[in-house]
Amino acid sequence: MKKFTAVSDVDNLQEIIKKALLIKENPLSEPDKGKGKTIGLVFLNSSLRTRLSSQIAAQNLGLNVLTLNAAQEAWNLEFADGAVMNGDTVEHIKDAIEVLNQYCDIIAVRCFAGMKNKEDDVNESILSQFEQHAKVPVISLESATRHPLQSLADCITITENRTGERKPKVVLTWAPHIKPIAQAVGNSFAEWMQEMEVDFVITNPEGYDLDRNFTKAVPVIHDQDEALKDADFVYVKNWSSFDDYAAMPEVKENWMLTNEKLEVTNDAKVMHCLPVRRNVELSDEVMDGENSIIYRQAKNRIFSAQAVFSEILDELNAK
Amino acid sequence: MKKFTAVSDVDNLQEIIKKALLIKENPLSEPDKGKGKTIGLVFLNSSLRTRLSSQIAAQNLGLNVLTLNAAQEAWNLEFADGAVMNGDTVEHIKDAIEVLNQYCDIIAVRCFAGMKNKEDDVNESILSQFEQHAKVPVISLESATRHPLQSLADCITITENRTGERKPKVVLTWAPHIKPIAQAVGNSFAEWMQEMEVDFVITNPEGYDLDRNFTKAVPVIHDQDEALKDADFVYVKNWSSFDDYAAMPEVKENWMLTNEKLEVTNDAKVMHCLPVRRNVELSDEVMDGENSIIYRQAKNRIFSAQAVFSEILDELNAK
Amino acid sequence: MKKFTAVSDVDNLQEIIKKALLIKENPLSEPDKGKGKTIGLVFLNSSLRTRLSSQIAAQNLGLNVLTLNAAQEAWNLEFADGAVMNGDTVEHIKDAIEVLNQYCDIIAVRCFAGMKNKEDDVNESILSQFEQHAKVPVISLESATRHPLQSLADCITITENRTGERKPKVVLTWAPHIKPIAQAVGNSFAEWMQEMEVDFVITNPEGYDLDRNFTKAVPVIHDQDEALKDADFVYVKNWSSFDDYAAMPEVKENWMLTNEKLEVTNDAKVMHCLPVRRNVELSDEVMDGENSIIYRQAKNRIFSAQAVFSEILDELNAK
Repeated sequence: MKKFTAVSDVDNLQEIIKKALLIKENPLSEPDKGKGKTIGLVFLNSSLRTRLSSQIAAQNLGLNVLTLNAAQEAWNLEFADGAVMNGDTVEHIKDAIEVLNQYCDIIAVRCFAGMKNKEDDVNESILSQFEQHAKVPVISLESATRHPLQSLADCITITENRTGERKPKVVLTWAPHIKPIAQAVGNSFAEWMQEMEVDFVITNPEGYDLDRNFTKAVPVIHDQDEALKDADFVYVKNWSSFDDYAAMPEVKENWMLTNEKLEVTNDAKVMHCLPVRRNVELSDEVMDGENSIIYRQAKNRIFSAQAVFSEILDELNAK
Repeated sequence: MKKFTAVSDVDNLQEIIKKALLIKENPLSEPDKGKGKTIGLVFLNSSLRTRLSSQIAAQNLGLNVLTLNAAQEAWNLEFADGAVMNGDTVEHIKDAIEVLNQYCDIIAVRCFAGMKNKEDDVNESILSQFEQHAKVPVISLESATRHPLQSLADCITITENRTGERKPKVVLTWAPHIKPIAQAVGNSFAEWMQEMEVDFVITNPEGYDLDRNFTKAVPVIHDQDEALKDADFVYVKNWSSFDDYAAMPEVKENWMLTNEKLEVTNDAKVMHCLPVRRNVELSDEVMDGENSIIYRQAKNRIFSAQAVFSEILDELNAK
Repeated sequence: MKKFTAVSDVDNLQEIIKKALLIKENPLSEPDKGKGKTIGLVFLNSSLRTRLSSQIAAQNLGLNVLTLNAAQEAWNLEFADGAVMNGDTVEHIKDAIEVLNQYCDIIAVRCFAGMKNKEDDVNESILSQFEQHAKVPVISLESATRHPLQSLADCITITENRTGERKPKVVLTWAPHIKPIAQAVGNSFAEWMQEMEVDFVITNPEGYDLDRNFTKAVPVIHDQDEALKDADFVYVKNWSSFDDYAAMPEVKENWMLTNEKLEVTNDAKVMHCLPVRRNVELSDEVMDGENSIIYRQAKNRIFSAQAVFSEILDELNAK
């Protein structure tokens, strides 16, 4: 694997899921694979699961880890090409990346959508600079439009938790929120589900359809109850409008996932990437109930990251 | 040891002090005891000594360390059970703890008293959630009402520095401050001293008596000079009123510890948990004088933590 | 080496440059030299290169690393001797240092100039407290008046990149900026260049001469074009006025380094310590051009730090 910013960077999804599940059985099976190599974890945004699971994964492989909270610990970054830097910004992202090239064997970066300028976000104005200027493999820790380490963990979780013979029905359902949230997790989950052996549908209110570049031919149903019917997995996530970018068109129905709503499902397992706003996105009873596999899903973040780091190291060690 | 949040978690105080002193002689005697295991150090508040000494102790035992400055690096936490999270909070403490369960073999947390609602603090509104939801051993790095790693370090320091045959007289003296400070260090020291072979008294102004649930039958003397007479150890610490919670009733006498005040003691050694406000809590001459064992006390924070981590690992490794 | 805060701490500059270049060839040649020892990296200011390169250097030597963002993670520090600490400051720097003495085998600290009080900065009001109170070797990660790890990296870079037989001409040129910046990098570079086999000149506008305690007999030329003639290395850096401390006297000419300005040089290589304000201090075309060795210079920060840590460890291990 040469980089990891989208599902297209994965050669064989079933293989990497299998690999991750083997790692889960024995996380310390390759303790020296990263020896003498350094991964830089660069956070332009907050993180709990990604921060901790990436550190654990790296340590399990013997990688040195450098964590940088860029905004607080280093310098205020400039992102505009050709900028005359006579304002608040102190260091150009290009230069920061070129320096990381000198210090790291792998660069992992979290750079959320700004939610202000659609074009900037759609074009991955920050991640694209990493992809352009990095001379070492780049790993996304969530970017403006995707969260691939989360999606791989989601695939691992579905693989582990599916039961029976039939192809599972997976529903990605929009959930309420109080602020405009990025589409990254939704986009990414949609992309990865299309590579899995599942029946996949998306349900969201009118006005909240995700970018068709990610969802492609996936059915989008605007009636949540209809969509949930017979579901084996229900993935709960809020996002703001893509068409009317970052807007929050009024939603009259109640979309918060509750046990009552789950009744029409096939005793569906409930997933969420976390953090979750309880009793807004889903009810306490769902979160704390037996159908939730949300914490197991969080645990799989370790093995998702470790499988990816391991494949990147295979590439580096082959050089 | 199954957890460590109070003196009651220690089976045998003399044994763990002895263990800590052996570790002090040879800190690297168990370099692989924590191998392949991870301790999460979660800070909801500032920390210097606790932060660094816990990291050193963990490294000495071969533990992987994850440090999380929760408020700055992760998400704004909700603490109220059943909350409809439609405000400023992004992640419920319950969910953060459940995720830490997935990532850590030991969870250590610093969660100071809020000093706003007495009931919340007395009931340990945050630590209690860790005790309730953590599925791995929990270690307090100071909570609303106790600072047990400090108190164990204090016991180690007194054991090391006592001289002569007689039972040492230990005085915990209140000191002035400019802001309402929690009672945690005072409470905790009082609890631990009752388990030691010492003559222990507390002195503080009227209105500043600590919670009797911690001080129990310990004599509380409102005349500082009287209390200091013949003392072998003087522990200096401010706290705000417990009865009139977080208030700072006027104190007319001068309670700042000075060399002059020490004259009535038995050449007492002076202790403080740090950070200390010089020339407010105690004078420069005391802090920098020969009677101060405050820095040695700070050093013992390493061995206090390491003894506790080691006993917790014994329990984990026995499984 | 007993400490490292200025060029005067280096016994033999050519030897340590040679050592650094050997380390660069094989960074993992002394993987256990720091085993069981701890370096504390204390940041009172922002850092990217220094933070990461110091961590890498320490890891390469097997040192345990404790990183402390003092202001954000620990307590607000008091710097005034004899202060009555009844204001905003919570811990005296003296006490923080004494605690670091207990926890660390080496203390490294970044403490920028405050740029408010000339005397404080000239006297190194913060670093001097570390030099006075530390009982273990102190390493400067940039102080009010010097940045020696940068300067050593600069010497390494010039040694590596010089070509031909003749003694290279090195020009330190002032560059524009929008805020008053410390003189530390300029001072320090001037000091170190005087120890190198180079022809060294400084060029800056009238009113911007550096402190003669650092520049001594080095020619200072106020005509940039004149100074740049025939240069082999051009080091670009802004600083504010030393005489009229922290002022920014008006500069009428354009001092931003451009390719056009470089034409009179001997195809000079361009250096900068970073972070750099593009199109203010130097143009994009210079930064991204073939003459820039700025990223290579940044990489050498690792080997500069590692050579210094290694020599300090020699001293510690000899005890």
